Amino acid sequence: MTEISASDLTLEEKASLTSGADFWTTKAVDRVGIPSVMMTDGPHGLRKQAGSTDHLGLAGSVPATCFPPAVGIGSSFDPELIERVGAAIGVEAAIEDVAVVLGPGINIKRSPLCGRNFEYFSEDPIVSGVLGAASVRGIQSQGVGTSLKHFAANNQEFDRMRASSDVDPRPLREIYLRGFERVVKDASPWTVMCSYNKLNGVWTSEDPWLLTSVLRDDWGFDGLVVSDWGAVNDRVVGVAAGLDLEMPASGGRTDAQLVAAVRAGTLDESVLDTAADRAIDLVRKAGARPVAEGPLDVDAHHALAREAAGRSIVLLKNDDALLPLQKDQKVAVIGAFATEPRFQGAGSSLINPTRIDKALDEIRAFGGEQVTYAPGFAVEGGAIAAEGRSADDLRAEAVDAAGSADVAVLFLGLPAAEESEGFDREHIDLPAAQLAVLDAVLEANPRVVVVLSNGGVVALPFADRVPTIVESWLLGQAGGGAVANVLYGVVNPSGKLTETVPVRLEDNPSYGNFPGEFGHVRYGEGLLVGYRWYDAKRLDVTYPFGHGLSYTTFEYGPATAEVGTDGDITVRVEITNSGDRDGREVVQVYVAPAQSIVQRAPRELKAFASVALGAGEARVVELTVRREDLAYWDVRIDGWIVEGGTYTVDVAASSRDLRSTVSVEIVGDPVHQELTMNSSVGDLMSHPVAGPIVQQALGGLMGGGDAAAASMMPNDDAMQKMMASFPIGRLAGFPGLPVTFEQIEQLVAAANAGE
Amino acid sequence: MTEISASDLTLEEKASLTSGADFWTTKAVDRVGIPSVMMTDGPHGLRKQAGSTDHLGLAGSVPATCFPPAVGIGSSFDPELIERVGAAIGVEAAIEDVAVVLGPGINIKRSPLCGRNFEYFSEDPIVSGVLGAASVRGIQSQGVGTSLKHFAANNQEFDRMRASSDVDPRPLREIYLRGFERVVKDASPWTVMCSYNKLNGVWTSEDPWLLTSVLRDDWGFDGLVVSDWGAVNDRVVGVAAGLDLEMPASGGRTDAQLVAAVRAGTLDESVLDTAADRAIDLVRKAGARPVAEGPLDVDAHHALAREAAGRSIVLLKNDDALLPLQKDQKVAVIGAFATEPRFQGAGSSLINPTRIDKALDEIRAFGGEQVTYAPGFAVEGGAIAAEGRSADDLRAEAVDAAGSADVAVLFLGLPAAEESEGFDREHIDLPAAQLAVLDAVLEANPRVVVVLSNGGVVALPFADRVPTIVESWLLGQAGGGAVANVLYGVVNPSGKLTETVPVRLEDNPSYGNFPGEFGHVRYGEGLLVGYRWYDAKRLDVTYPFGHGLSYTTFEYGPATAEVGTDGDITVRVEITNSGDRDGREVVQVYVAPAQSIVQRAPRELKAFASVALGAGEARVVELTVRREDLAYWDVRIDGWIVEGGTYTVDVAASSRDLRSTVSVEIVGDPVHQELTMNSSVGDLMSHPVAGPIVQQALGGLMGGGDAAAASMMPNDDAMQKMMASFPIGRLAGFPGLPVTFEQIEQLVAAANAGE
Repeated sequence: MTEISASDLTLEEKASLTSGADFWTTKAVDRVGIPSVMMTDGPHGLRKQAGSTDHLGLAGSVPATCFPPAVGIGSSFDPELIERVGAAIGVEAAIEDVAVVLGPGINIKRSPLCGRNFEYFSEDPIVSGVLGAASVRGIQSQGVGTSLKHFAANNQEFDRMRASSDVDPRPLREIYLRGFERVVKDASPWTVMCSYNKLNGVWTSEDPWLLTSVLRDDWGFDGLVVSDWGAVNDRVVGVAAGLDLEMPASGGRTDAQLVAAVRAGTLDESVLDTAADRAIDLVRKAGARPVAEGPLDVDAHHALAREAAGRSIVLLKNDDALLPLQKDQKVAVIGAFATEPRFQGAGSSLINPTRIDKALDEIRAFGGEQVTYAPGFAVEGGAIAAEGRSADDLRAEAVDAAGSADVAVLFLGLPAAEESEGFDREHIDLPAAQLAVLDAVLEANPRVVVVLSNGGVVALPFADRVPTIVESWLLGQAGGGAVANVLYGVVNPSGKLTETVPVRLEDNPSYGNFPGEFGHVRYGEGLLVGYRWYDAKRLDVTYPFGHGLSYTTFEYGPATAEVGTDGDITVRVEITNSGDRDGREVVQVYVAPAQSIVQRAPRELKAFASVALGAGEARVVELTVRREDLAYWDVRIDGWIVEGGTYTVDVAASSRDLRSTVSVEIVGDPVHQELTMNSSVGDLMSHPVAGPIVQQALGGLMGGGDAAAASMMPNDDAMQKMMASFPIGRLAGFPGLPVTFEQIEQLVAAANAGE
Repeated sequence: MTEISASDLTLEEKASLTSGADFWTTKAVDRVGIPSVMMTDGPHGLRKQAGSTDHLGLAGSVPATCFPPAVGIGSSFDPELIERVGAAIGVEAAIEDVAVVLGPGINIKRSPLCGRNFEYFSEDPIVSGVLGAASVRGIQSQGVGTSLKHFAANNQEFDRMRASSDVDPRPLREIYLRGFERVVKDASPWTVMCSYNKLNGVWTSEDPWLLTSVLRDDWGFDGLVVSDWGAVNDRVVGVAAGLDLEMPASGGRTDAQLVAAVRAGTLDESVLDTAADRAIDLVRKAGARPVAEGPLDVDAHHALAREAAGRSIVLLKNDDALLPLQKDQKVAVIGAFATEPRFQGAGSSLINPTRIDKALDEIRAFGGEQVTYAPGFAVEGGAIAAEGRSADDLRAEAVDAAGSADVAVLFLGLPAAEESEGFDREHIDLPAAQLAVLDAVLEANPRVVVVLSNGGVVALPFADRVPTIVESWLLGQAGGGAVANVLYGVVNPSGKLTETVPVRLEDNPSYGNFPGEFGHVRYGEGLLVGYRWYDAKRLDVTYPFGHGLSYTTFEYGPATAEVGTDGDITVRVEITNSGDRDGREVVQVYVAPAQSIVQRAPRELKAFASVALGAGEARVVELTVRREDLAYWDVRIDGWIVEGGTYTVDVAASSRDLRSTVSVEIVGDPVHQELTMNSSVGDLMSHPVAGPIVQQALGGLMGGGDAAAASMMPNDDAMQKMMASFPIGRLAGFPGLPVTFEQIEQLVAAANAGE
């Protein structure tokens, strides 16, 4: 195996090696000793199908630890934690002899409606990239591969296999590809999975620009590109574009197409060789994995899942310090989710968990007899629903429980059927029946703690009326214990929002451009995704990006920022835990140029750190803003440009809680542009060589003196603004001008030659 | 001349005939008796340059009546009035021997910042189209041609000669081209003027799709396409695309390029023949104009300008019935605009007026000695500014005047330098100094009438604090008298808003996508332009599209709607003038399908009428909604489709003041689409032929029975939604499925054959 390459294989063998054997495995080539390897769904645990696979790869899987999905663990903002969880998933994969875990998913949460948002980290590309890289590092530390997905601009489930994401160059590079670039460059995933959708009209599985120019040539990716399951449209076109492996199997049909194309000369055999060599390389990497000894330490992984879940919880509001609870307080637990937990989303990431903690049990472990329970409402398909009690009856019971308790802890959330791969939500509202229970409970006892279970953001119309809100997302199999830990203060909450909680769905930037129609979705909001939009439009939000409270308080000292010889900015700030509990603070650094020749969001997150601080402890935290992350994508040169000048650096507790602001001076990248006859008069005027000459020749037209006075323009300044926008070639053609077209041509040529 | 055609001309003569002789005239071909004709700027009056033209065609022009610019007269919503004004402009052109008036401009007001908005009618294409057609009819009724401009998607001044307006097919057809289509089809303008900008990357002067496929093939335009002045980039490419006439002259340089291209065989001579024939045809039409006897009846046209200005005024608010004023009331007139009127915008539409009415003089004509005046503030470049008095002094004087009057009439507005062709505004705020005067005056006397002079919409942060607001736009030379007429009730205001007055600039749909950068501006808001956006997003506005008050009141009876044999909808509603003054009401009809397979605005204006009703009079008003205006542009078939089903018809006094709602049933257009291997499972399932077969073959996978139970999907419905989105060809390739790829191919073929 060590010495094998594509050159040792027949044409048919090469074709066969670049498509699956079945739903989950690659094809072996026994003749030369290339074994088959297995891939399974991820990303927050293993979904290895048990026994024989079904037609669509949808059926049940072997038990595995269900860690918090990305929506949860992302809220930790902590790459160290995510790397540890990744390593644990790697261990589980190794024990099951799985070569590649199909994850992480790092697509941007463009709309809260996307059915698969729970599998993704953030509305921000730096968060997605940094955390995605941590996941890759963790899993791959165990000799198990990853598949970075879904590449790219796959931000909805609606018509996901046909719709073209129509994205302009800047948002594409700066928002939708930036996280992928980060993970590829920082963590070298073994594989990248192309998405189902089209990007600007081209299937991503067939896009040579995306799969080769960007991924390999620009970013230096040297792994394998695998199709999402069923993403191959035309296999021959795909291989030519840089798609190395088709999954799942196509029964030899498309292998034959490849062979025929090579024979007909429409596909260069060397292209197929490259794909086959990458497949061989993947098998070789998988073969290098040390033998993993089972069985799985279920308890240890469950404990890690509980730790991770605790770090995933975001305390949105805690007025009147209702939390943490005291063990001797009378607590009414209300809501069917307390006994029927929602802890993961549906679809290919669905784990068959090794165990499931229920919040009610875990709360009783703290509060014992002081804890009462009323389901309050039924969740579709759950045990309470099966009991068939009336909504009125359930609500009345909940009101009674709340009325006789010190605190009511109300579990609200989205039904499982609303959040799944394969389709999007149509609104962001919690079920009306649950909101009705909340209203009734609030009337009986205003001391209410709402605990939310949801994979996608929900509207919180009650945010002003409820004193305490705990966003517990989907937390994996140990979520119940983690919630209890937070409620009783054993864990001090430290998660922060990786996405904005808007007041209304209509406020979301993609509203009106989501999910598109007839095969196209226009990313009309451009760069202004997530908080960038809410900030640029000065819109109120319910909770801003980066927001999250603690049971302790953190004070920020004055920040400093220094540009190093490598161009990166080192930001230092002293953080003090000024309360009486140990805790963690997610420190955030937002950056924006003071002035820019291109559109910019008011501020963008460029660095963050999760910092553990004991009660009363103070520490200087150091964060690095990479120079490359300051760059905008310049469509004039089709490349990244860091603008020179002053940048504002905000050290912040959230995107709308800026604690310390400093400035740095950045040396810009040079931009050289040739003048042409379509350069504007303004361009020429500001050109070092051409400027003075043009000024002399055309100055009279530009508003100097009395030109405007007798004309149609209100003043010289207006005249100048209008004239400056004329392409020089057009103006030069005007009748009776003091310069000829040919003279301007000569001037442009001379200016470009630097004469 | 009558018999001449391109076939009588030499190649050089044909080339010369399709470019200008100088700034304003076409070239004659004396050999065959083709004379030169003149074009001059419009559109709300004649800007015929006096004497010899300057290099840029910017200098002073002969006196002409300055009628209200489009921003004003558009508020009348009255095609009859606009047609009469057009006829008057035609008379003035005829007297000056002008063949073509360069207007009307009907571009959509995409952003309130566009510097040229005052030249355009509306944010709505039906308003733009109906009123633009009236203007064309009026001017052309005098044997003078028009030039419908700026074709197309020219909605900003920033980088106007280079930027590409990047617009998706539906907004392009339904919003940006719809008005042009209306004018071309209804009023046959002699010429259409291509714009400076690019459209989706192609200069409009070089776009065969725009200038030929759409304009001529789809809409049946048979006139001449002239370039905007300086819009020609590559003349040969332009002529090939359908550009008939280059303006202004290029000194023979590009004529030679045309000749060379024909000689080299890169341009078919017949294409040049067509352009030359259109130029000959234009000259022929101009020659058919009856001799117009001068001199101009200045008084009569000034009176018409005053009438039109009165109809242009929009009464935004009139709490406490401050208006109309009584002649015996003590009135303090405040604001330099009362003596230094802003009545038009700058740039190519700037008229050298035959006279100028000042509001203060006209108000004194009513109120005499009861009227006092204080300038309040200085306007840049005006007489008050020249006096050099301090702002404090001016303000104090204004406060005194207001304090001792019954009513203060405060003229606020934008300085001339903020509104011009050639550049855009950067905000929508009135000058801070003016707002400070308003605050001071309000404190001295809350009985304040604000009269606004502005070509583009301004923010009205004082709308809640000021009892009465008169939006008097730019009203042309007789605006001062018209304002006085409205203030004293001689004219009962009847204008309504053709564009939304937003609360903040940030609320505007183009915010964040305006004005673009580096040669591209993305129309990211798509269809949701103007009120469509504010309604879809449920955003508060200061004053909604279609809003405008009267000194009388109008009651709406129950509407009826009936679909005629031609498919048009006839809407009837009885309107009653329920007050004690004669007045006019602009009745509006908004339509929306109850359900749609494509994105729709909550409602769209489809018909309107300005109805004069005496005090107490009632009349049944009949409005026609054209069937073609119900159509959406279907990107699947690249054509218009009227969806069948129920449509909601709202008869309204504004876009947010719906008075009577009825429903009609519309028979839809047929849409036939072939199935392909990329049709979705859902498409096949709903196909009459393929559906039952697929259901049988794949039913088990679609969630019938227990398929979902043991799988990763939450329930059968979710399973079904996910599977329905699979392209059938992808699914058919999956391993182990009960149907083969070939079987599906056969099924698709059979379904398409109707078997």
